[in-house]
Amino acid sequence: MNRATLVKNILKKKSMLCVGLDIDIQKLPAGVTPLEFNKAIIDVTREYAVAYKPNLAFYECLGMEGWKLFEDTVAYIGKEHFIIADAKRGDIGNTSNYYAKTFFETYHCDAVTIAPYMGEDSVKPFLGFDGKWAIVLGLTSNQGSKDFQMLPFQNEFLYQKVIQKVAEWGSAEELMFVVGATQASMIAEIRKIIPHHFLLVPGVGAQGGSLDEVVKHGMTKEGGLLINASRSILYASSGDDWKEAAAAEAVAMQQQMSQYF
Amino acid sequence: MNRATLVKNILKKKSMLCVGLDIDIQKLPAGVTPLEFNKAIIDVTREYAVAYKPNLAFYECLGMEGWKLFEDTVAYIGKEHFIIADAKRGDIGNTSNYYAKTFFETYHCDAVTIAPYMGEDSVKPFLGFDGKWAIVLGLTSNQGSKDFQMLPFQNEFLYQKVIQKVAEWGSAEELMFVVGATQASMIAEIRKIIPHHFLLVPGVGAQGGSLDEVVKHGMTKEGGLLINASRSILYASSGDDWKEAAAAEAVAMQQQMSQYF
Repeated sequence: MNRATLVKNILKKKSMLCVGLDIDIQKLPAGVTPLEFNKAIIDVTREYAVAYKPNLAFYECLGMEGWKLFEDTVAYIGKEHFIIADAKRGDIGNTSNYYAKTFFETYHCDAVTIAPYMGEDSVKPFLGFDGKWAIVLGLTSNQGSKDFQMLPFQNEFLYQKVIQKVAEWGSAEELMFVVGATQASMIAEIRKIIPHHFLLVPGVGAQGGSLDEVVKHGMTKEGGLLINASRSILYASSGDDWKEAAAAEAVAMQQQMSQYF
Repeated sequence: MNRATLVKNILKKKSMLCVGLDIDIQKLPAGVTPLEFNKAIIDVTREYAVAYKPNLAFYECLGMEGWKLFEDTVAYIGKEHFIIADAKRGDIGNTSNYYAKTFFETYHCDAVTIAPYMGEDSVKPFLGFDGKWAIVLGLTSNQGSKDFQMLPFQNEFLYQKVIQKVAEWGSAEELMFVVGATQASMIAEIRKIIPHHFLLVPGVGAQGGSLDEVVKHGMTKEGGLLINASRSILYASSGDDWKEAAAAEAVAMQQQMSQYF
């Protein structure tokens, strides 16, 4: 999906909601298969979300069945939503090429998340595919982001250096950055470096980030954000009303977002 | 495989050879299936190698068949060799848990490679499994290692900071580091930080690193190194003699290594 279509969807739906399909088989309602669960979550959130983000860890751990589930889930989402393979890949150039083929060609995703530690030749193989995106880790939402991303480097932190450098490798039509909602106050600084790039923002919901803070510091005229919620939607209720509860949570997030358009 | 067994194998075989099973279907001999190719490479190198390292990118890009190939390859290697899933994973704690389960429990590998950018809670879930290892990227062998890993940070480079910090999170019985052979002169500096940890060393062979330099700066009494060769063994010949050529290349590397024991 190219940028123009993504922006059109966001403005039409007044939504920047990305639903993280982090399916945890230990948390599924009794008698519901993983694929049935994903399909139900997609059905009840489709109208309010602009993107879906399956995290590959939750699929890979199921073995081959998990990859079938991933494939079937991506197919069920269809072409109207932006699909992010949250895989955090990255390897030497020759190898990254194969990861790009995997997610863009074998599995027909729109985007894949990338870890930047190995530098330019680990990121560039994901660029240059028509309507496909590399979403590079900038400042993540977890506690461990302090260990390296927040190392002070001359007058800036490492994550600022990373975002600056990576942004030189491709355009805002093919590159996004992961910036955690738990670090919302730093989004204003990040917007000075990359005013036009989309940010994928995890950490709202279960991880405690504030939607209002993220929007305040990060939103642009085109939206400019994909705000992810996973567990807070998928496991909104552990009772029989899990579908209704997931829908209600998605609606609530979309309505909160709609105020800013 | 625990450290004592790995060391015993290294000393017995006088080998630190790790064969990288980076199977590229475009390079396979005519009429040979990927699994037949892997099995043949394993058969002719088994005696000279102490470890195998399938890089997941080359398997994932084949879709579900690729995961079956990975599973069958790992099973064919068996229990006598150290098996590294070169996957370069890493995510927030809750998610890294699932990657650890994937490679240690679903696929029975001994080790998985990890990208450190997300910090402590992305690495720790891979520790504490009996006889299982996290192999964290320190200084990689590719051109892009200069972009971030070599950033000067006070009196040291980022990669030194990363190695120092990660080494605090677990013991030398469960943690190794990736250090590229193309950076051999820096291995001496790295040995000052982590004298006892095993290093996984890619970049000898096709990428141009020198085996002698790596051994000179990095070897310990226990070996302390797993030196990887992938393309230089797998595709040693594109003719009918591909098996013999692969064997010859593995033998040559092992013989060169044996001089240092």
